[in-house]
Amino acid sequence: MVNWSIVDSEVKEWLREAGKNIIASFETALQIDTKADANDLVTNIDKEIEQLFTNHIRRRFPSHKILGEEGFGDEIKSMDGVIWIIDPIDGTMNFIHQQRNFFISIGIFENGEGKLGYLYDVVHNELYFAKRGEGAYWDDIKLPMLEKVDVSEAVIGLSAALLTSNDSKNTLIPLVKDVRGTRSYGSAALEFAYVATGRLDAYISKMLSPWDFAGGKIIVEEVGGVVTDLKGKSLNLLEKSPVIVAKPGLHAKLIEEYFQDN
Amino acid sequence: MVNWSIVDSEVKEWLREAGKNIIASFETALQIDTKADANDLVTNIDKEIEQLFTNHIRRRFPSHKILGEEGFGDEIKSMDGVIWIIDPIDGTMNFIHQQRNFFISIGIFENGEGKLGYLYDVVHNELYFAKRGEGAYWDDIKLPMLEKVDVSEAVIGLSAALLTSNDSKNTLIPLVKDVRGTRSYGSAALEFAYVATGRLDAYISKMLSPWDFAGGKIIVEEVGGVVTDLKGKSLNLLEKSPVIVAKPGLHAKLIEEYFQDN
Repeated sequence: MVNWSIVDSEVKEWLREAGKNIIASFETALQIDTKADANDLVTNIDKEIEQLFTNHIRRRFPSHKILGEEGFGDEIKSMDGVIWIIDPIDGTMNFIHQQRNFFISIGIFENGEGKLGYLYDVVHNELYFAKRGEGAYWDDIKLPMLEKVDVSEAVIGLSAALLTSNDSKNTLIPLVKDVRGTRSYGSAALEFAYVATGRLDAYISKMLSPWDFAGGKIIVEEVGGVVTDLKGKSLNLLEKSPVIVAKPGLHAKLIEEYFQDN
Repeated sequence: MVNWSIVDSEVKEWLREAGKNIIASFETALQIDTKADANDLVTNIDKEIEQLFTNHIRRRFPSHKILGEEGFGDEIKSMDGVIWIIDPIDGTMNFIHQQRNFFISIGIFENGEGKLGYLYDVVHNELYFAKRGEGAYWDDIKLPMLEKVDVSEAVIGLSAALLTSNDSKNTLIPLVKDVRGTRSYGSAALEFAYVATGRLDAYISKMLSPWDFAGGKIIVEEVGGVVTDLKGKSLNLLEKSPVIVAKPGLHAKLIEEYFQDN
């Protein structure tokens, strides 16, 4: 049986180590490459940080498997056993352009059930984390359960790029008109952390990879938030998917009023 | 003749005092009212902080005039003399919903010329400021002059609400498609600070008030950024206006390619 408290204390130590390495990297030149398209960026630091975690995990927990954005983990075909889903730098464009507003994201699952989730804001040294059944935390502050909110008073995270297909079926346009405000930060991990803390009431993305949502999902669910695809279906932890994460009540209303017929 | 160094050191002291008061207010219940519309929010703290500044300014610099968002200043009809333009809390919606991502913004002008600019990120205790002709600073780091960037590599700040009028004349839609990425933070002061530090390459707003841009304009111009309306015309410091702030070169290109014919 896994001793989750031991895993938790190891992860926190590795996160601090990784954070120090990332901050130190600000003084050196980045090697920047592109992946799927010209704006899908990756740096040597993304790779180094993923390797830092894979090395630690393989040495300390050799039976655990790893799914990492940069491919230093394992080829994962099922959620059996203990699986770490890792994004070494979520918000790589922010990392390059802003040297802030990027996160390390880690979700740890056992037979498909989220056990531990971590979203680490390296630059501000703020850690959001959850142990399943024991609550979610922002550093040493226990996060309260999320409360309901009306659409008209909601502030939601979404990218302006979602509104550029301006046909009549784009239900994001009425949504943007109906809510109190929208924000866009360029890091899914940041937006999940903001939903978990109530700073955003919802976050919508047209496409996220498992490492973008794995850690955040565990944390948000621990405070009563709901994380699904845009039809309201559970996410497959091994597949890309459109994602909506929202406060309870608001989640159902958004799906019903804006996405049901898509 | 005004001794700007003395003014500067007073402003910095008052900003720290105001920041402490704002942080302390997080423990108390806010009184929230609406202004022009249901999403135009104001709190008792916005008003208290503006009064803190107006009281200090009137006692210390009785000949100076004040234009403040909450109306505790003077009725200003011309830019003659020394004028302080103050937003006690820029990003009030963030202040209420997030308890972060709001700024105190101050611009001080003499006969219409920007002399001192301050953008203070209260929660992160980061101060962006400039003395005309002496450079701009992020805390104790002197900010480098802004460098040119192509549209295709630019990350720009703009609100998703700008894209909801989806007629063919909405030139923001091609712009969003052409740039590397967009962000939206809900505070003009934050977005000016981000342009000044190179974290954003440009920021576009369809309508800002003088207190939203006065402090930021002085700082961004000190590092070579350009601040105008969407036609490229200078801003009137006593009027609301659409605003574009961008790196040199990029500013001219954005006006020419996306806004000239609006």
